[in-house]
Amino acid sequence: MSSLYKRVDYQALINFSADVLQRIGYPRNKAEITAKVLVEADARGVASHGVTRLKVYKNELESGHVKPLADPEIVFETPISAVIDGHYGIGSHISQFAMEICLEKTRKNGTCYVSVRNSNHFGMAGLWAEMASREGFIGSAYTNTIRCAVPALGRQRMLGTNPIAVSIPTDEEEPFLLDMATTTAARGKLGVYKRRGKDLPEGWIIDEEGEPISDAQAATNLLADPTRELGGQVFLGGSGEEMGGHKGYGMGLLVELLCAPLSMGSWTRDVFQTPDANVCHFFSAFRLDLFGDPAPIRTYVGNILRALRNSAPLHGESQVYTHGQKEAARRKIALEKGVEIDEATWSMLNGLARDFNFASLEER
Amino acid sequence: MSSLYKRVDYQALINFSADVLQRIGYPRNKAEITAKVLVEADARGVASHGVTRLKVYKNELESGHVKPLADPEIVFETPISAVIDGHYGIGSHISQFAMEICLEKTRKNGTCYVSVRNSNHFGMAGLWAEMASREGFIGSAYTNTIRCAVPALGRQRMLGTNPIAVSIPTDEEEPFLLDMATTTAARGKLGVYKRRGKDLPEGWIIDEEGEPISDAQAATNLLADPTRELGGQVFLGGSGEEMGGHKGYGMGLLVELLCAPLSMGSWTRDVFQTPDANVCHFFSAFRLDLFGDPAPIRTYVGNILRALRNSAPLHGESQVYTHGQKEAARRKIALEKGVEIDEATWSMLNGLARDFNFASLEER
Repeated sequence: MSSLYKRVDYQALINFSADVLQRIGYPRNKAEITAKVLVEADARGVASHGVTRLKVYKNELESGHVKPLADPEIVFETPISAVIDGHYGIGSHISQFAMEICLEKTRKNGTCYVSVRNSNHFGMAGLWAEMASREGFIGSAYTNTIRCAVPALGRQRMLGTNPIAVSIPTDEEEPFLLDMATTTAARGKLGVYKRRGKDLPEGWIIDEEGEPISDAQAATNLLADPTRELGGQVFLGGSGEEMGGHKGYGMGLLVELLCAPLSMGSWTRDVFQTPDANVCHFFSAFRLDLFGDPAPIRTYVGNILRALRNSAPLHGESQVYTHGQKEAARRKIALEKGVEIDEATWSMLNGLARDFNFASLEER
Repeated sequence: MSSLYKRVDYQALINFSADVLQRIGYPRNKAEITAKVLVEADARGVASHGVTRLKVYKNELESGHVKPLADPEIVFETPISAVIDGHYGIGSHISQFAMEICLEKTRKNGTCYVSVRNSNHFGMAGLWAEMASREGFIGSAYTNTIRCAVPALGRQRMLGTNPIAVSIPTDEEEPFLLDMATTTAARGKLGVYKRRGKDLPEGWIIDEEGEPISDAQAATNLLADPTRELGGQVFLGGSGEEMGGHKGYGMGLLVELLCAPLSMGSWTRDVFQTPDANVCHFFSAFRLDLFGDPAPIRTYVGNILRALRNSAPLHGESQVYTHGQKEAARRKIALEKGVEIDEATWSMLNGLARDFNFASLEER
């Protein structure tokens, strides 16, 4: 996704981002986790969830949505579940805490489900699911988001982009990693189109009357105004039923029902409607040895993925991909040659360096 | 979905269908379960998974794909999981067996995951997920299918329609019930279009060169030929990436990875490629009290669904629906006034009655 302007050393970009977050009020350990989550997204080419968010995170902190000193708390648990209150703290720190509990219980008891309320933006959902597959488990992560999406057949803004991430270990180095907004496009992708001056594909966003919007700036204005009740992002499959819009909407609604009621936190309609953000998440993991010997299972998963990659592509396409493959390849290059940053993000980072009198990324 | 030709009494249609299945070789108990699964789909308006399948089931039995006397067997288990070998038996009977184990372990231990290999078509996926929500649990059901779908950016037939069903209890009589093929349309929907002589929407099926097919008969011919390697159904979001085709493909692939490797059964590429069908399923359930008191959780789920139904519809639409709502309303009418059957299905049922010298549905 990244339109290359500069490559920045992976660790230098983490350090710089952590310095920025610490300066705006994050404790160092929370700044480091958050910086890593952002830079990991950039390294994988998911610029929408990368360091461009530093500016957003700064605004959220200044507006009081994020309380950087608050720590998450387990408010209910069983041997295979936990409910966590994030107390309006930092999303990536809360999610790391939640996923560590999820993995600890899974190691002991085979599986775990964790719901989280009163959190904030947790970055790229796939990173949390991937924590499970790194241990050989199947993992998943879900979150509600700021209100921005209309249900199929509707034009009132009721839900979020509500992403789903699932990671499954294979016999390869990298897992199967599905990480998708249930809307046609992730909200952050709009920002990428806007910064690059590109028209939106028809069917990403509808206006207050239900008509498609192609101008990324107009779409951003529509979504940015929290007083607007009508118009918003469309779920996968479109705003009608013939191309399956009710299915994308169903996946988004499923995410909502796992996140908010199971944590008794806010549903998307109410997220960011008070001074606190109130984002909710849901995580789960389960062990492969619930089904026998994990080794042949992992090999079988790998065989299916390889068969798909070797299948006949559409004319004009070089190959069929499996989920996580492109991102893993980009990450490998980013670790060797530096993380791709586009021009607008580069300017933003330099602006932060000037504001805080930090050594800029070029000086590091 | 049903174009009304006749209404048939719910129980009479089950009895007739069970008689047909028994006559072709199903033991009575398996015939009754299967008949109920088919008629429940018709009652909900999901004609593609209804009694029209009697003809398909007869063919599958005659071709040896289904072994009606085989019984499922637990081949591996833990307190929260089971792997079941269906031994090529009857899909709905195997799935009932699997889901009963899943619910029994969930009652005892809070959750359960069950994978199934060597099964057959299990009917409408949602019915199995709904078994869990009737007990107050969250339930899900997944299955691979006959090979018919191309991955995003691809034109080789590698996967199935691979449906996902999730059911969540609410404070209302009927649960949230998402039940969706991960392809844009369920395979059975093609048959409905063909029987009614309707053109397919562009983007449901591509031909061997990757071009869309609009003629339902041509599409059916393409899919019906098992020697054809190229062309097939498209996943939700289309065959490219701009409208999210990689997401629909990702959901379908996720279903495949849960069904086949976790049961060590056949993946879609190999389903129906031997005399046995080898369909695989995956089921799971977990209890609401893993997260605290279930009552307020159920109310909260209901509140979200009601808010969506009361939100502003697109111009020209009467309302926004939630998943399972339309089907529950149709089922209520079907139980009172009879199940809707279309003309082609009516003829087929009368043909079966003549073949077997049964009292026809009009005589019952």
